[in-house]
Amino acid sequence: MAQSSGPETGPEPSAPRGKATIASIAAEAGVSVPTVSKVLNGRPDVSQKTRERVEEVLARNSYRRRRSNGSAGPALIDLVFHQLGSPWAIEIIRGVEAVAATEHVGVVLSELGGKHRPPQDLLDAVLARRPLGVVLVLSGLDREQRHQLESRSIPFLVVDTDGEPPAGVPTVGSNNWSGGLSATRHLLELGHRRVAVISGPADVLCSRARVDGYRTAHDEVGIALDPTLTRYGDFSVDGGYRYGMELLSLPDRPTAIFAGSDMQALGVLRAADELGLRVPEDVSVVGYDNLPLAEWVVPQLTTVNQPLYDMGATATRMLLGIARGEAPTNRRLDLAAELVVRRSTAPLL
Amino acid sequence: MAQSSGPETGPEPSAPRGKATIASIAAEAGVSVPTVSKVLNGRPDVSQKTRERVEEVLARNSYRRRRSNGSAGPALIDLVFHQLGSPWAIEIIRGVEAVAATEHVGVVLSELGGKHRPPQDLLDAVLARRPLGVVLVLSGLDREQRHQLESRSIPFLVVDTDGEPPAGVPTVGSNNWSGGLSATRHLLELGHRRVAVISGPADVLCSRARVDGYRTAHDEVGIALDPTLTRYGDFSVDGGYRYGMELLSLPDRPTAIFAGSDMQALGVLRAADELGLRVPEDVSVVGYDNLPLAEWVVPQLTTVNQPLYDMGATATRMLLGIARGEAPTNRRLDLAAELVVRRSTAPLL
Repeated sequence: MAQSSGPETGPEPSAPRGKATIASIAAEAGVSVPTVSKVLNGRPDVSQKTRERVEEVLARNSYRRRRSNGSAGPALIDLVFHQLGSPWAIEIIRGVEAVAATEHVGVVLSELGGKHRPPQDLLDAVLARRPLGVVLVLSGLDREQRHQLESRSIPFLVVDTDGEPPAGVPTVGSNNWSGGLSATRHLLELGHRRVAVISGPADVLCSRARVDGYRTAHDEVGIALDPTLTRYGDFSVDGGYRYGMELLSLPDRPTAIFAGSDMQALGVLRAADELGLRVPEDVSVVGYDNLPLAEWVVPQLTTVNQPLYDMGATATRMLLGIARGEAPTNRRLDLAAELVVRRSTAPLL
Repeated sequence: MAQSSGPETGPEPSAPRGKATIASIAAEAGVSVPTVSKVLNGRPDVSQKTRERVEEVLARNSYRRRRSNGSAGPALIDLVFHQLGSPWAIEIIRGVEAVAATEHVGVVLSELGGKHRPPQDLLDAVLARRPLGVVLVLSGLDREQRHQLESRSIPFLVVDTDGEPPAGVPTVGSNNWSGGLSATRHLLELGHRRVAVISGPADVLCSRARVDGYRTAHDEVGIALDPTLTRYGDFSVDGGYRYGMELLSLPDRPTAIFAGSDMQALGVLRAADELGLRVPEDVSVVGYDNLPLAEWVVPQLTTVNQPLYDMGATATRMLLGIARGEAPTNRRLDLAAELVVRRSTAPLL
């Protein structure tokens, strides 16, 4: 990406945007040019204090490193996961790999062990390898980290199954509200009138979007919601089991459960089994994600297809485009989430 | 790794081993020094013919590039999968990531789309990024490709769930024979006398090792094998379903089935369900791998734990040791495969 060359608008406290050079940064920070260069390359042999000063001057001047064209070093992108534990990670990885391979770009995979911000040493490693760009899955960057990537002209993009788009950052997600709507419509059309929902955590936007879709489907047909049938949990098998046991043990138990993930749906299947309830004869179950396992389990799961492979592929295509200097036509892309009907749902008897 | 400095033993047709330099290679191949350097770095701007000639001279002279010490470029390893389709891939990836992260090494992930040898353009990309080493999962290198890595002093290692160790290549696997033995002993101890086995492909060594363990368990207690109860298939859910249907439809059907993978076991569960047979009351099922899903399905699967995470971690530790110049104490490591008893097996009624 070239340095900014547009007209200056608005007051700037310091040097004009994008006009800084390594030499001017070094002079302003009171360090040598090689020191600035080391900081830009994420090299460890610079003191923490010097480094912070240089980063601060880089950010203040909106410095943008020029990217060399052509074959300077191997072509890489970084793919950073919040966590690799769930089988849905592999679907995203496969989508990223497929596009990267056709463009002869290597994919460096990292996971944050459940944290949602990369630690600084991981970010330093990213700066050192100078990737074409960074794809973050269910994770983000703080303000300083964003500045660090921006000053090295390393674009980044978020694959966001949560539905919480960070402002100004290109994002690929899927439409959770319409997923919740179509899953619930399906159950209502089968004649169910007591439909429960087990969603993800209440503080994650995608959970709320799906429950809102569930609510709207009820509104459409004029059925009042029973608030005792809505549970917020996590996306795990254990969570599905726990809430499944609670819901299916109610005196007036639901005849259908819409789960927040296929993993949760597996937990509901186990709860039903332990309570001697048959799926779908006694209770219908809908999952979310359409992981390969949805087709393998007994009974095969009716679920909402979250196009994880396509999300990974689309994100990678978009990122490589930005790295080539193309402006994305849209900074927020939501792919469609569609219902897949299998054997875990049936008409109310 | 340093150039070889031991005494020369045995006749050598050409220059003494390890004494070649880039200059001597260039002279012998009749090309310039920069051309040899480009070939070593996997750069595309060299004609195919020149490249083959240089590779041939490199191999003939057993050229070994010196690796620069210290911080020349980012620290990477390459992790190459035969295929990313199955959920067991993520377990190996997590083990590799965990060790690489503590050593501040980036992991570049690739998949071969089902092929067992990397295509040349992938290998060129590896040469260009000069990783500390390469981990190959269920895949190998041909002789030319091995020479290419050796001449660049890039060590490689195979994670080998197949049990087919390539001669001389460091390998991390698991003990398939004892896995087959313990699974079958468990079923025989429960009183089963008609125990079937569905293994992987007959031309994959690990399939044979497991069936041999199954046979030995029968020999131990003096039970003759019924050859109609042994099937070789693949490791997929569909294969498990197909052979499960065949076996469970036999007039004198088996009362227990030992499957070659957890995925196959899922297929057997579905076959049993369609035939109206309950697991474990009517038929006991043992899986293989102990993927997370083995704990999630109903009934929870008794299975053989293949320590995939540990295999990935051990392989990475071993590779990084070799890259530092340490000689591995053992070039072939097999980790133990242990039975995990859950709910899909029960005493014969």
